[in-house]
Amino acid sequence: MEWHSVFASRMGRMKASEIRELLKLLDQPEVISFAGGIPDPALFPAEAFRAAFEKIFATGASAALQYSVSEGHRPLRDWIAGEMGRIGVPCTRENILITSGSQQALDYLGKLLLSPGDTALLGWPTYLGALGAFNAYEPRYDQLTPGGNRGAEAYRQAAEAAGSTVKFAYVSADFANPTGETLSLRERESLLDLAEALDIPLLEDAAYQALRYRGEAIPPILSLDVARSGSIEAARTIYCGSFSKTLSPGLRVGWVCAPQAVIARLVLMKQAADLHSATLNQMAVAEVAQTIYAEHTEMLRDTYATRCAAMLAALTAHMPEGVTWSDPEGGMFVWLTLPRGMDAAELLKQALEQERIAFVPGGAFFADGSGRNTLRLSFSRATPEKIETGMQRLGKVLRAALVAA
Amino acid sequence: MEWHSVFASRMGRMKASEIRELLKLLDQPEVISFAGGIPDPALFPAEAFRAAFEKIFATGASAALQYSVSEGHRPLRDWIAGEMGRIGVPCTRENILITSGSQQALDYLGKLLLSPGDTALLGWPTYLGALGAFNAYEPRYDQLTPGGNRGAEAYRQAAEAAGSTVKFAYVSADFANPTGETLSLRERESLLDLAEALDIPLLEDAAYQALRYRGEAIPPILSLDVARSGSIEAARTIYCGSFSKTLSPGLRVGWVCAPQAVIARLVLMKQAADLHSATLNQMAVAEVAQTIYAEHTEMLRDTYATRCAAMLAALTAHMPEGVTWSDPEGGMFVWLTLPRGMDAAELLKQALEQERIAFVPGGAFFADGSGRNTLRLSFSRATPEKIETGMQRLGKVLRAALVAA
Repeated sequence: MEWHSVFASRMGRMKASEIRELLKLLDQPEVISFAGGIPDPALFPAEAFRAAFEKIFATGASAALQYSVSEGHRPLRDWIAGEMGRIGVPCTRENILITSGSQQALDYLGKLLLSPGDTALLGWPTYLGALGAFNAYEPRYDQLTPGGNRGAEAYRQAAEAAGSTVKFAYVSADFANPTGETLSLRERESLLDLAEALDIPLLEDAAYQALRYRGEAIPPILSLDVARSGSIEAARTIYCGSFSKTLSPGLRVGWVCAPQAVIARLVLMKQAADLHSATLNQMAVAEVAQTIYAEHTEMLRDTYATRCAAMLAALTAHMPEGVTWSDPEGGMFVWLTLPRGMDAAELLKQALEQERIAFVPGGAFFADGSGRNTLRLSFSRATPEKIETGMQRLGKVLRAALVAA
Repeated sequence: MEWHSVFASRMGRMKASEIRELLKLLDQPEVISFAGGIPDPALFPAEAFRAAFEKIFATGASAALQYSVSEGHRPLRDWIAGEMGRIGVPCTRENILITSGSQQALDYLGKLLLSPGDTALLGWPTYLGALGAFNAYEPRYDQLTPGGNRGAEAYRQAAEAAGSTVKFAYVSADFANPTGETLSLRERESLLDLAEALDIPLLEDAAYQALRYRGEAIPPILSLDVARSGSIEAARTIYCGSFSKTLSPGLRVGWVCAPQAVIARLVLMKQAADLHSATLNQMAVAEVAQTIYAEHTEMLRDTYATRCAAMLAALTAHMPEGVTWSDPEGGMFVWLTLPRGMDAAELLKQALEQERIAFVPGGAFFADGSGRNTLRLSFSRATPEKIETGMQRLGKVLRAALVAA
């Protein structure tokens, strides 16, 4: 049969990601890769998980293997509510929905808020997975600038001119993928001002929030929102958290923290979409989080901090003039801007062929297809020695390209 | 903020299920419940799973805890492809996508095929979770009759009159939820004829297919389709399988078997929606399936067969005249039709209050809101003794209601 003729119109927006296709080619052992943005598996708390699964099976596996409620495992929701309180968001388990990673939260929030043609505000560049999730709901995008300095009226008029309505702003406030950048307190407050002026929800993607290596922690936007509005029930910020960067991505456990009016709708959505996240995994994550979360994330911060510092030092040592980069205080990424006119996708070919190193060209992170002279480096899986060697090689490729241009 | 004003239009179709709300009230220890349609947890292969998790953690947990590909764990896809071959569907792992239960497959297929207003054909009654999943994509429904005897032209014209297009037919061929009924070979062939005439895909929900207690197995619709069209790549049937009724629902592992053109699109969708199903769970299910699937499902069939027979015998013994019921050859359900004018939702109140028994009123399974004189009984979690007591009590409630009417 002619499948294309029966697909829904939204499928026109769901294309294979060039990056993901590319990444499949990059995991060759002889390549030093700064491409994938994934945790170092050597740092997983494997022993703690082994013990957690053993304990669950020793104390009766029936509940772990059975259907469970769409909201999520109660002790895990309680633990998360406590953790949210610790970072400045007083709430209860009724404000928490367990999702299959924060990627699922982004999909559900697109589904909750976007009708075709609605406007979503997000950064140029932004998290590729957010674009992927939202694209399924056929939105229009407009560019969110840090601090929201274009002003509510400008966004509203641009949407109206396109026959659209602004439905939400999406932002990663801490050590964002792909830039590694963090919003200042003032920028967070400005975003809240903008969301208030437009009367829209603010989606806060906090996937990397626990991984700060230096500098002072800045309160999550949701925390600032609760301080303004008096209670999480009066807040407009929807917070997406994840255990993927702290405990394990393979177990697919994340959460949404939001007013109950939002959680109730997301629970209905989850019931219809996959019933619930795996019961056993939620129990294991609850057990491991209760036991070792604080000390484990401290170990992660120590380890990744060294790699981050090594990359920043190596960039300073090896990048030619005209190349600039972000100064991440946490997370997994450094963002490079090359001289105007350079094409990072072209550069990647040379880097792979001539120097056996890999990174992600930045263009795919831009909703408008710009940003060809940018690239993303991840330091999460490389030792300081490999980082030094890799940046030396990147400098060599860049200098050759600059000479050729 | 006024949340209702920012929700997408699809949220108007996503309502809390009365049944699910009801089911929360029914799990009281003193109630004999025939309501939930879930496996008996005493029959879970808990020891096999315990051993599988132990083995995975003993042989290196890094891969199990890490991100993995959206298509699913290769050894599990291979095992499923082999199992599909065994039931008459020659295919390879390239035809298999792992989903988080078959509920997720239904959500993805709605997302793949339905634009708002498109027509989906399905039975009156049908699986409540299918209605829930599809509702998010705002379809129009039309009634699929067994054998599709309304004819392609009638469906096409009805859709056209509503400004719509028929996009797929959805069916559960074996021991359907809620009726327990099975389509004959001829009815399956007729459905394929209808799908061909309308040039639409056929969605085959096979959640209960492995649980046949008597009678001859009838080939899956996908198998008949492959026999007609020569190859799975030329088929129009999309098969949704699940381990929820055979190994464990709590691990959330199911699959789609379909032409590669469909799988490729669903892989993109999964990447955007939740990246992949939990790696560890897929590895554990692969291990357990490879080890004990055949003998375990045989044990399940033996056990549930006894309960099914007990329920049918007890119905014959205790139902008053005018009540009829389906004759399931497998699965978990018997479907009762009460005399016209009776309301099963009213009856449930009396059954709970007077006799401490529970079932599911049938109305919710009808896309058009009819079927108020029907109800669903599940025999999966009750012993033959409880079934006998329960049906005796149901008969008493029914006779009282008939006298009152």
